[in-house]
Amino acid sequence: MSIEPPTDRSAYDFSHRIRVRFAETDAMGIVHHSRYLPYLEEARVEYLRHIGHPYHEIRAEGVDMAVLEAGVQYRQPLKFDDVVDVHVAMGPITRATFQMVYLLTVDGVVHSTGITVHGAVTPEGRPTRLPAWLRSFSNEAPGT
Amino acid sequence: MSIEPPTDRSAYDFSHRIRVRFAETDAMGIVHHSRYLPYLEEARVEYLRHIGHPYHEIRAEGVDMAVLEAGVQYRQPLKFDDVVDVHVAMGPITRATFQMVYLLTVDGVVHSTGITVHGAVTPEGRPTRLPAWLRSFSNEAPGT
Amino acid sequence: MSIEPPTDRSAYDFSHRIRVRFAETDAMGIVHHSRYLPYLEEARVEYLRHIGHPYHEIRAEGVDMAVLEAGVQYRQPLKFDDVVDVHVAMGPITRATFQMVYLLTVDGVVHSTGITVHGAVTPEGRPTRLPAWLRSFSNEAPGT
Amino acid sequence: MSIEPPTDRSAYDFSHRIRVRFAETDAMGIVHHSRYLPYLEEARVEYLRHIGHPYHEIRAEGVDMAVLEAGVQYRQPLKFDDVVDVHVAMGPITRATFQMVYLLTVDGVVHSTGITVHGAVTPEGRPTRLPAWLRSFSNEAPGT
Repeated sequence: MSIEPPTDRSAYDFSHRIRVRFAETDAMGIVHHSRYLPYLEEARVEYLRHIGHPYHEIRAEGVDMAVLEAGVQYRQPLKFDDVVDVHVAMGPITRATFQMVYLLTVDGVVHSTGITVHGAVTPEGRPTRLPAWLRSFSNEAPGT
Repeated sequence: MSIEPPTDRSAYDFSHRIRVRFAETDAMGIVHHSRYLPYLEEARVEYLRHIGHPYHEIRAEGVDMAVLEAGVQYRQPLKFDDVVDVHVAMGPITRATFQMVYLLTVDGVVHSTGITVHGAVTPEGRPTRLPAWLRSFSNEAPGT
Repeated sequence: MSIEPPTDRSAYDFSHRIRVRFAETDAMGIVHHSRYLPYLEEARVEYLRHIGHPYHEIRAEGVDMAVLEAGVQYRQPLKFDDVVDVHVAMGPITRATFQMVYLLTVDGVVHSTGITVHGAVTPEGRPTRLPAWLRSFSNEAPGT
Repeated sequence: MSIEPPTDRSAYDFSHRIRVRFAETDAMGIVHHSRYLPYLEEARVEYLRHIGHPYHEIRAEGVDMAVLEAGVQYRQPLKFDDVVDVHVAMGPITRATFQMVYLLTVDGVVHSTGITVHGAVTPEGRPTRLPAWLRSFSNEAPGT
């Protein structure tokens, strides 16, 4: 994890809206810290669909995206029924890995940031090269 | 689901102990109702191991145990750090399905009952016959 | 659980759409059976909002809706990225409890049915009477 | 997160054993990456009990331990039924925060490392000072 996720929404290309489920809260009355990672994942899946590479197509090409690292910073708690905007942007890309950064806001207020590092693997779980479209992503994305 | 799980512990062959995780609680301060099903599953897996049929061996024989139905009755809430005894017994068995019943107690006090109905399926998800040891289970189990 | 959920969509008043998260799948490649209950809950919360009684308002009146029983029938598996319509209808209502029934479809095809039984409790967890609007619900709902 | 979790088991004071549930796997056939955080939490709770400060007592003193940051590195996947040893050690402690580091091994082989940063908060969620026993922890712990 070589970068710090920006807390300025304008640094992100895409956002996806999620409403907090009661099942995601814990006895402290807030969303349990482990429940943020599925939010990041859901936003990541929607982002890939948005840029024309739905996850099913990536898998159909024989590539899975293993999560190598994940980190979350919890700044303001999320509560049941909160409407969360998960902002997503692509981070640094290498031959075999890429990073994504996330900003979670509620009504424009920063609640959390996150980062995930991914590697391409074969269906058997062996590391492989990233798909070409992803390796060249830095050239495609406006302003990145 | 053709039977009612008994609330008398002596009706069960086996029990497995689970301590409630904080991550399993919700904003009502109790274990979320969806979190009981993984408890039943964990106890079921231990029960199958106990009777000499660990799940890995069952799968190695090309059979998966799909869950066809599940029901839970919530009588007393479970709380963080509670030590729960999940009592398990085999219920009615047909050519292609079997039922299991569960009783959850804390310090001997009944908190919940549950029932699951399972069917044998191939790795592709198609229904198949139960393994022979399971079909003949009613003969093996003392007092069932 | 005194009723059987209908499998005909026209029997339901309301439906809510949920897309399956990858985090909800299991090693059989399908949605884990415990993950349906949060789908039912999310649809229930949206249904209550739809009929003018958002859950926050119910709680603000000092009433929590404890889950007393839940049951799910799994007919066709759900898979990652499936778009699921969760159809919801109110079932039988007593002085202190109410039931809700659910039908899960994907592209109009029945995948699952469910039922939950709820009781009104105080914030301390003691049973209390249902709110008046809920006790009189059978009169309000067209066609129920 | 100011430190790197060691991958040498001897650097950890305590370990707690967890068996992977089927419910924690995903459609890639491995434990979903979000499911590691509850493992760390379960081990943290057992560690606090082990050093004489069970979580219930900490909360009874009016202090909750909010998670401020969490990070996990996934080196080797975990699979259903794996028996995981979660090694735990206290990391740097400040007036208001403390860090914990984790090493996950299966049969002695490193599978994952993790780190969590915690802050003491009041039941209302406001930051407060760490309990005295925790602030002085660095003096108590042999070899830290």
